Amino acid sequence: MSTLILVSNDDGINSQGLDALVAALKDLGEVIVVAPDRDQSASSHSLSLHRPLRMDKIADNVYTVDGTPTDCINLAVNGILRDSKPDLVVSGINKGANLGDDITYSGTVSAAIEGTLLKVPSIAISLNSKKDFHFQTASKYSTSISRYVLNHGLPEGILLNVNIPNIEEKSIKGVRITKQGKRIYDEPVVEKVDPRGKQYFWIGGNELGYVDIENSDVVTVNEGYVSVTPIKLDLTDYDYLSTLCRDFNGFGK
Amino acid sequence: MSTLILVSNDDGINSQGLDALVAALKDLGEVIVVAPDRDQSASSHSLSLHRPLRMDKIADNVYTVDGTPTDCINLAVNGILRDSKPDLVVSGINKGANLGDDITYSGTVSAAIEGTLLKVPSIAISLNSKKDFHFQTASKYSTSISRYVLNHGLPEGILLNVNIPNIEEKSIKGVRITKQGKRIYDEPVVEKVDPRGKQYFWIGGNELGYVDIENSDVVTVNEGYVSVTPIKLDLTDYDYLSTLCRDFNGFGK
Repeated sequence: MSTLILVSNDDGINSQGLDALVAALKDLGEVIVVAPDRDQSASSHSLSLHRPLRMDKIADNVYTVDGTPTDCINLAVNGILRDSKPDLVVSGINKGANLGDDITYSGTVSAAIEGTLLKVPSIAISLNSKKDFHFQTASKYSTSISRYVLNHGLPEGILLNVNIPNIEEKSIKGVRITKQGKRIYDEPVVEKVDPRGKQYFWIGGNELGYVDIENSDVVTVNEGYVSVTPIKLDLTDYDYLSTLCRDFNGFGK
Repeated sequence: MSTLILVSNDDGINSQGLDALVAALKDLGEVIVVAPDRDQSASSHSLSLHRPLRMDKIADNVYTVDGTPTDCINLAVNGILRDSKPDLVVSGINKGANLGDDITYSGTVSAAIEGTLLKVPSIAISLNSKKDFHFQTASKYSTSISRYVLNHGLPEGILLNVNIPNIEEKSIKGVRITKQGKRIYDEPVVEKVDPRGKQYFWIGGNELGYVDIENSDVVTVNEGYVSVTPIKLDLTDYDYLSTLCRDFNGFGK
């Protein structure tokens, strides 16, 4: 049986990042694309439970869904691919990094979370820039990291969150295994008045910088290394669990 | 300065669970409600970045937002409460449990994640049923657990995910500190044809049961205990990080 790779993203079907990813993976196996029909950035791990979803086949092995990245992976694995489970889910290449606490908001990472929940080894790939994207650099590491996961698998419940510096391939210093870091945002709410005099708000959140945590994703990628962070779905804090157990009576009966 | 408690949910402003929570907390401090104007279940940690948001004051200390639970907490803490940071965020009382991997999808938990990101101690509270809700039971433990957190605080980057059995208060066996468990779902995609002959899909996901993991949230709450799970925002898997570091060369340069 040939290798089957499911690809999605959160920038939508027309993103150059998606095209670059598909091209990067085509030598590793058969690639199926199931992607949102429009930009779903910051859609997080939303699942559309309260409405029907449309899936359109727009080319051989290419489908769009009027939903979130999570919807795409769910519909693909439990729908069109239910008789041929994919060997790998790759989400990206996102136009913009997913570093630090961003990953809790990220549609790109959420597609990989959904793949992981459905027991398919999954990778999220993002490029650390908002413009002038070096997709060639990202493509190279998309291929090599995907090949690694196809060969070695991933432990159950763990995905890889990959962030790539937006520089020429020859300037990349290497690959580092990192931990989740911390970005610093400014006060993010803008308050305005619309043309009809009614107040509205816009959530902003400009990045001011990041906390200098050694070996963190955000520090590493800004130093010119490809950052690979193993992310787990078990969010339990076991240390604090022990502390709370000692305080048990604080909660009453 | 008096204690300020920010309340939100994902079932929307008209949920009985929200009313029960507000009543449960009113003796602990001043309660401000900022909740979605409609049901946002399974909205996950979505942040609305690409459109303006409306916030309406519908009563003293009660606001609605045409967005997600995450939007509500963000607009509240960075907007109307920017000069008076809340001492506590409580999200709920959700009509339905948030156990195991559900928490990655949950709007209820996401409101608490956003509170935690904004450095406010945060609690998510859910009732383990889809109907015939015992809000009185949930209210009692909402009060006692909130009081505990107001008195003791929470470590940075950690929230409490609380699930309450849907039984009479006197039948509750006690409170247990738990870890994230695992629920089992059936094949969740339903395929149908609309009145105009066009195919559509509906994501289902009926719960078939759960994995019998000792001291897990789902096992504990089904045994009749209130489940309190400490959830952390650092999703790094440090064990697998070490393993990957040894395999470092697998990724190329």
